[in-house]
Amino acid sequence: MNNRETLIKSEERVDDLQVRDLKIIQNPKGFCFGIDAVLISNFCEVKENATVVDLGTGTGIIPLLIAGKSAASKIYGFEIQAEVADMAKRSVAYNGLEQRIEIVQANLCEAGSYLGAGIADVVVSNPPYVSKGGGLVNPTSQKAISRHEIHCTLEDVIQTSARLLKPGGSLFMVHRPQRLVDLMWYCRTYNLEPKLLRFVHPSLSAKPNIILVKCIKNSKPELKYLEPLIVYGDDGQYTEELKAIYATKSIDPKDKGRE
Amino acid sequence: MNNRETLIKSEERVDDLQVRDLKIIQNPKGFCFGIDAVLISNFCEVKENATVVDLGTGTGIIPLLIAGKSAASKIYGFEIQAEVADMAKRSVAYNGLEQRIEIVQANLCEAGSYLGAGIADVVVSNPPYVSKGGGLVNPTSQKAISRHEIHCTLEDVIQTSARLLKPGGSLFMVHRPQRLVDLMWYCRTYNLEPKLLRFVHPSLSAKPNIILVKCIKNSKPELKYLEPLIVYGDDGQYTEELKAIYATKSIDPKDKGRE
Repeated sequence: MNNRETLIKSEERVDDLQVRDLKIIQNPKGFCFGIDAVLISNFCEVKENATVVDLGTGTGIIPLLIAGKSAASKIYGFEIQAEVADMAKRSVAYNGLEQRIEIVQANLCEAGSYLGAGIADVVVSNPPYVSKGGGLVNPTSQKAISRHEIHCTLEDVIQTSARLLKPGGSLFMVHRPQRLVDLMWYCRTYNLEPKLLRFVHPSLSAKPNIILVKCIKNSKPELKYLEPLIVYGDDGQYTEELKAIYATKSIDPKDKGRE
Repeated sequence: MNNRETLIKSEERVDDLQVRDLKIIQNPKGFCFGIDAVLISNFCEVKENATVVDLGTGTGIIPLLIAGKSAASKIYGFEIQAEVADMAKRSVAYNGLEQRIEIVQANLCEAGSYLGAGIADVVVSNPPYVSKGGGLVNPTSQKAISRHEIHCTLEDVIQTSARLLKPGGSLFMVHRPQRLVDLMWYCRTYNLEPKLLRFVHPSLSAKPNIILVKCIKNSKPELKYLEPLIVYGDDGQYTEELKAIYATKSIDPKDKGRE
């Protein structure tokens, strides 16, 4: 274990992902993963030997969770920020997953050129939420780049996903409900038909604050829904479903009661 | 009252709408109004002296409810089926609302030619839900014409709404969640930006089965949500909100806790 510990820089910490003993390196002063990454990794359906691409991977949380919970053969994670991509690469090495996960330090828009068209079974993304011009930001801050459309727009993410996916391949995206029209508009524009939608609500009676969307390339229109996902119960604690997602050992879609 | 009674044909009945003593003539063997019409009439925001157009009015339920609950000066209802439009006209006469409600027996696609462009403050619609080719139907049956896109498509309804509305005017539509992508796609195509969305769920933990959408003509993208509307409580009875909607005396949006 002493070799592994050299991968961790000062100010960084190692968090346990509670899936097959996986760990992630994070810097508490930078952008740490949140519930969005956990929910989209859980929502994502990944078959055996699949090729998966994560657009805007940050510290690599989604590739790590998918590596832990599926039998994907290869997972690429694109991250534009050198420092963050470096942390992701070190997390991959820390877990000994270099054969299955490749972190590429590049703008996610370049993923199609880097990997080639039509190579992915699954694209997953937890992209910047805030549209261009939406609020003043420091365009060099890690958090701003992760949250605002500074280096890529929603359209870029969707266009790139469409290029990367095989026909019949799936895009899984987590986003904000306010952007639902944009998301559906661009998905249909690039022949990624929205097929499954799940709204996440902070509590039973609250408005949704997160959406999970599955789109299929070149598929017929037919949108289905999952039951609302409720984060907190009346007691202010995570609901049983949330606890199960955080403790989940499988992302086999058969486990999730889909239609 | 004897004069009024001559308006009712055999096999028809008169139902009390529980709003300002309004009544509606229905034929139990034909297409009777359901929860969709009640919910969209409640969701609809109608200012004083507004001009309102209801596309696919059926027996006139939406114009009657809006007449009862708002100070709209004129409400047009378009209905293609002669027999159904006749019933709607007789309901208008039964309530003495001929000055405020005009039922036009025509395909709703012709509403723009009939009324002229840019005349409406509000368009409301409870259109046929089932897309063309969606299931075998008898194309002459009243219920089929009300439910299936036999004489008009969702695109027709949205294109006609866009033509009828003033800039800044609102479209309120009730539809099925499965058609959300189509709905958003066509609304944005015709510059009717979706601004407010409410999902209706049969029960707290169930998938949504009805959507209520408000779009504004020539408006900026920004989609907001209302809290989920739950129809049945754990006791199998209507929730308090549903009871209140059925008993509502006002559709003033200030009463509804919107953002």
